[in-house]
Amino acid sequence: MSLVVQKYGGSSLADADSIKRVARRIVDTRKAGNQVCVVVSAMGDTTDELLELSAQVSPDPPDRELDMLLTAGERMSMALLSMAIADLGDSARSYTGSQAGVITDDAHGHARIIDVTPGRIQTALSEGHIVIVAGFQGVSQASKEITTLGRGGSDTTAVALAAALKADVCEIYTDVDGIFTADPRIVPTARKVDRISNEEMQEMAASGAKVLMLRCVEYARRFGVPIHVRSSFSHREGTWVVESNSEEEGAMEDPIIAGVAHDRSEAKITVVGVVDSPGKAAEIFKAVASEQINIDMIVQNVSALETGTTDVSFTLPKTDGQRAVHTLRAAQEMIGFESLQYDDQIGKVSLVGSGMRSNPGVSATLFQALADNGINIEMISTSEIRVSVVTRDDQLDDAVRAIHTAFGLDSAGGEAVVYGGTGR
Amino acid sequence: MSLVVQKYGGSSLADADSIKRVARRIVDTRKAGNQVCVVVSAMGDTTDELLELSAQVSPDPPDRELDMLLTAGERMSMALLSMAIADLGDSARSYTGSQAGVITDDAHGHARIIDVTPGRIQTALSEGHIVIVAGFQGVSQASKEITTLGRGGSDTTAVALAAALKADVCEIYTDVDGIFTADPRIVPTARKVDRISNEEMQEMAASGAKVLMLRCVEYARRFGVPIHVRSSFSHREGTWVVESNSEEEGAMEDPIIAGVAHDRSEAKITVVGVVDSPGKAAEIFKAVASEQINIDMIVQNVSALETGTTDVSFTLPKTDGQRAVHTLRAAQEMIGFESLQYDDQIGKVSLVGSGMRSNPGVSATLFQALADNGINIEMISTSEIRVSVVTRDDQLDDAVRAIHTAFGLDSAGGEAVVYGGTGR
Repeated sequence: MSLVVQKYGGSSLADADSIKRVARRIVDTRKAGNQVCVVVSAMGDTTDELLELSAQVSPDPPDRELDMLLTAGERMSMALLSMAIADLGDSARSYTGSQAGVITDDAHGHARIIDVTPGRIQTALSEGHIVIVAGFQGVSQASKEITTLGRGGSDTTAVALAAALKADVCEIYTDVDGIFTADPRIVPTARKVDRISNEEMQEMAASGAKVLMLRCVEYARRFGVPIHVRSSFSHREGTWVVESNSEEEGAMEDPIIAGVAHDRSEAKITVVGVVDSPGKAAEIFKAVASEQINIDMIVQNVSALETGTTDVSFTLPKTDGQRAVHTLRAAQEMIGFESLQYDDQIGKVSLVGSGMRSNPGVSATLFQALADNGINIEMISTSEIRVSVVTRDDQLDDAVRAIHTAFGLDSAGGEAVVYGGTGR
Repeated sequence: MSLVVQKYGGSSLADADSIKRVARRIVDTRKAGNQVCVVVSAMGDTTDELLELSAQVSPDPPDRELDMLLTAGERMSMALLSMAIADLGDSARSYTGSQAGVITDDAHGHARIIDVTPGRIQTALSEGHIVIVAGFQGVSQASKEITTLGRGGSDTTAVALAAALKADVCEIYTDVDGIFTADPRIVPTARKVDRISNEEMQEMAASGAKVLMLRCVEYARRFGVPIHVRSSFSHREGTWVVESNSEEEGAMEDPIIAGVAHDRSEAKITVVGVVDSPGKAAEIFKAVASEQINIDMIVQNVSALETGTTDVSFTLPKTDGQRAVHTLRAAQEMIGFESLQYDDQIGKVSLVGSGMRSNPGVSATLFQALADNGINIEMISTSEIRVSVVTRDDQLDDAVRAIHTAFGLDSAGGEAVVYGGTGR
């Protein structure tokens, strides 16, 4: 008997009919001979409605109480899903994050899972029940307070439970068919990827691909949990996110490119006229880091000979932009720079693929494709399996399409371009 | 410093503005130098909305999952109330029934409190926090399952916490000014009672008075918790429900009558033509009791000489009526009776007062008042401090008014009639 962990998001649980449809799917999985543990998000708009209620009573509610409020959302969806399963004649039991043994640190609103002790879940599964667990929530280890995991929390709950239960697969149900070579809303010819390494998926998620959150992929990679991303609206196979098999990796059949990700969530800050002396960059980023702000890309221009100063640009989440600007302004005299430029009209496009590790020329092809389409490159950053460039926001969609086409990823575009191999 | 337990019902927490108003009231109580522990129900229509959702996914949801669903209601109201208090600059922490140590049996949907272990509440209070606790819910002792307490559960939670915390008072906030001598919707001249013994309150609640549920009064009486029933919409004193002081009880100032209660929730079953032999009544009520149905009043006619049979009538909750009829039909041959009559067009009016214990003539005055108003009495039952009669449903309001007037309870009606005393 296999043990399957399934996760259904809010869009799959929008109303009573959706819940019944999901219940049918779960019962089918059970009837096929599997043990089933299901992780749910809150129904459709519930979380937004709860946030709206909290805004009505307080503009700045305490994190502890906000967690208490928001965790009501999954409580409702999990109980309703259990009822719908019972109505189909099967037996389901719902458990809160706390009851399921999801132990976190005490960072309300963005807690991290530090342990999973799924004793009650294992007992319920062994008794033949389908188990429904509230995603996105846990209980803090020391103070036993209710916590929420923040963005991507339900996916992470599913992967963490799959790891703790040694499940055979963690199925993440969503409203798309799987992972695509690019966002189909921007690239209509984007293709569904059947299989992607979790190393590649990690870069895709870090580069803005929204289907799976980065922390969930990181967790799956660390604990070796196979993820199957698929649609709750069809029975088609989705995308398998699996451990990269180093033996297979170089196989001729492997496509070099996994996909093109894009990200509109970042802004760029340029620190103009920084004295070009050792330690200046460190001072800038120490100031920003003191505000718990994550920096993404960094570019430092060559120092201008006549002035002895340079410009340093970096990208960061737009939501942290104003805070970073304030922090740097406050430190202007100490650091010593002329001015700050804040630009939130940028976009980032990233090409990801473990095949590029051993294939020179990938960057050149990418830059050429952008040049051919009149797209200016403002910043560049690369890793072993990724090339990212920053463009103007209004040129980002064109950039995504140009790169997607240049690497032969379009579904109607024939074979993928392959470097150092003979087939896709 | 006093320790005050306050309980606010759903109508006091209907929306964000109501929650803010209640928060202000709680903060005022805290600022007056009290420790404050607040028990809340779910907001306004939340419970009905959740029940509607559950009905959409299953006509007959499992009790365990229904409890899981419904307990989301208080979770929302308690978190929102905590936020509103924080917004006023005070510090509040909300706790679920389980966190607050409300330990119950495992009867989902109508669990009974078997212990209260309020360690976390006491710690939070001693740290200076205002504590908000979810009413109506607990956790089962053996299986650690989430339970709900059923009707009157939030009031009972408040009284149970007040007992466990040794609170100075348990304030039950509602949308009326307190306990009245009769339902003001039926008797516009009904007066608020300043003080009532919990013995009297217990009879009032058992006889249909809706402001306090019977189980809450029973709990308060057993543990000696003083209850103050008052309006959340005014600052007027309400009604104190206190231990009857036997020394004071006979004092001349004590009114003999506490009030008139009525009840439309019962039906009457008459078992016609029962053989009048020993043990027959026992067989009837054994059959009904096997279905966990509570019987209220019982009347057995004098046996008809020519047939040797008699009729037995009893009242029971309308909601159990059809089940009782089916059970008796099934046992008809075994018990031996001619036919069954089911009548749900009845009402019950009760006069309650500890003074009537030592005052003969109360029943006679009551029967005369009904006779004077052309109201036929179908059944009679009495206790030491109560007289109840069953009438036609459509004569019940008239009966309540007639009795209220006959005993001088009308606010514009001058002095109350007093038996064996000289006071009001």
